[in-house]
Amino acid sequence: MTIFASVAAFETALADLRRPDPQAEDAARERQAVLTKPAGSLGRLEEIAVFFAGWQGEARPQIERARAAIFAGNHGVTIHGVSAFPASVTVQMVANFESGGAAINALAGASGLELKIVALDLDRPTADFTVAPAMSEGECLDALNAGADAVTDDLDLIAVGEMGIGNSTAAAALCARSFGGGGASWVGPGTGVDRDGIARKTDVIARALAFHADAPASAFETLSRVGGRETAAIAGAVIRARQLGIPVVLDGFISCSAVAPLAADNPAITDHCIAGHCSAEPGHAGLLEKLGLSPLLSLGMRLGEGSGAAVATGVIRAALAAHDQMATFAEAEVSASL
Amino acid sequence: MTIFASVAAFETALADLRRPDPQAEDAARERQAVLTKPAGSLGRLEEIAVFFAGWQGEARPQIERARAAIFAGNHGVTIHGVSAFPASVTVQMVANFESGGAAINALAGASGLELKIVALDLDRPTADFTVAPAMSEGECLDALNAGADAVTDDLDLIAVGEMGIGNSTAAAALCARSFGGGGASWVGPGTGVDRDGIARKTDVIARALAFHADAPASAFETLSRVGGRETAAIAGAVIRARQLGIPVVLDGFISCSAVAPLAADNPAITDHCIAGHCSAEPGHAGLLEKLGLSPLLSLGMRLGEGSGAAVATGVIRAALAAHDQMATFAEAEVSASL
Repeated sequence: MTIFASVAAFETALADLRRPDPQAEDAARERQAVLTKPAGSLGRLEEIAVFFAGWQGEARPQIERARAAIFAGNHGVTIHGVSAFPASVTVQMVANFESGGAAINALAGASGLELKIVALDLDRPTADFTVAPAMSEGECLDALNAGADAVTDDLDLIAVGEMGIGNSTAAAALCARSFGGGGASWVGPGTGVDRDGIARKTDVIARALAFHADAPASAFETLSRVGGRETAAIAGAVIRARQLGIPVVLDGFISCSAVAPLAADNPAITDHCIAGHCSAEPGHAGLLEKLGLSPLLSLGMRLGEGSGAAVATGVIRAALAAHDQMATFAEAEVSASL
Repeated sequence: MTIFASVAAFETALADLRRPDPQAEDAARERQAVLTKPAGSLGRLEEIAVFFAGWQGEARPQIERARAAIFAGNHGVTIHGVSAFPASVTVQMVANFESGGAAINALAGASGLELKIVALDLDRPTADFTVAPAMSEGECLDALNAGADAVTDDLDLIAVGEMGIGNSTAAAALCARSFGGGGASWVGPGTGVDRDGIARKTDVIARALAFHADAPASAFETLSRVGGRETAAIAGAVIRARQLGIPVVLDGFISCSAVAPLAADNPAITDHCIAGHCSAEPGHAGLLEKLGLSPLLSLGMRLGEGSGAAVATGVIRAALAAHDQMATFAEAEVSASL
């Protein structure tokens, strides 16, 4: 099934967003109020339980099947020396994912996430977006659909992540075109470039913003002009998960940058998303603020490939375990107050 | 075996603290440097791996057996109306722990922690510490030994927690006597008292500090005069875990208050401890700073019973999984830099 058959189909999907079930949210709140603990004392864990109840439409939501979907793409912008690693590392790391040796393999395993790796035309990098749109309309639709295809309706949670040498530059461009502030507000060391590298990234973004200044500010134009295949795929996955009522756990700066153009068009797009963590990449905290999301974890991670989202999934599982398994004051015969 | 046969034995144990293995720490750092990720990009997860390597004496540490030890005690100070719940709730909650209905049962299960509940003379509350020492020397030694007994040398990690109506007042008194600042710096709503309740707590602590002003400032005197059986037990468990080289995951304000008198005597006592989380109880952030600990999680939790430490244990497991299971650049044939 092609979810995004045209730009218009994409725009309709983004404009018309499903809502959570308010009755299930209320039922989950009522349950939290009578579990054997002081009211509110599980903090964010209680909010997560109510959030999942709303999207799952159940007072006691469960996570039976959860997936980490990791999208990989290559970037023409790497010719400007914006990464500490050669572009060949993207395909090498995809092989590492597939043979089980990457961080996400270990972290997905620890959190009970099945792993789906989607390599997007790694032999065809996007165009250098300082002088052309990164993707044609058709290429961007293909990437959006690849993302949508990674989301199946048997999932209770999907964590998204990415791999793509050069993509922290594309991510900063997505943020700058979505929320303003210029490249300087959004660039950072990425995989570990030095001060000169950061200056090159800032300059590349300034040139890209100037080149694309007259193009429409819509989500689709921004994704296709300065994004990457992997970020467009994440955007497609996030919208598809919303259609299916499946909560999304976002990873770091680059995963969230995929949502930036969507949120600039329709801020409600993040209502089914949990920010798994706040990355050490300097633009991420400000991006989360723009997205209206408060990160679950803040562990100084900056790896991408869904690593932070995977660790956060463990916390989410704990939240739902407490919500589902705890006894009520009445069941346990515990006095509820003085 | 009686670990703390006398006050002198306790003081010797606290003065003479085991150190981690620097060779194992170095070996773990060397491994982190060649795993398939940008250097440092797993942030706090990398630090956790090195920390466990040092205490376990292994370059690739494992968590095979992990325990949450939850200590419960009752408090004479409850006669001053310092809690939102009646003192009878302590024994009711211990029954809830034992029948599997509390938050810690669900959260320990989610993190692979076996659960040990230690109820400490619940029918004999500590004395009202505004007019007498909370415990006699013998009672405090018994509680310290009960804590030590909960730590066995087959463990790779121990998470500590507590239950005891009234114990956030005792915890604030422990902090004030250890680090100064008076009751006002350390009191908070606990299980949920209102402004009047907080004022009562502050007043109780002022009277306790005045009553015990002339007593020595040593860890033992502070624990026995204004602590509780459960906090003394946590202190004993923390020291015993250090003797055995077992990392401790501390829970919230009350668990950490048990370490405050130890750290006032010997700040190195927290070197084998991880602060599982920062509680919403207002004194906790300042207490962690005094202990030199940076919390792993900050989820607005304030339940106690080891709940935050249990959730943090899931993150620790993820950290060690990545450290142990990831491929090196050479193994995966990934280019390590440009």
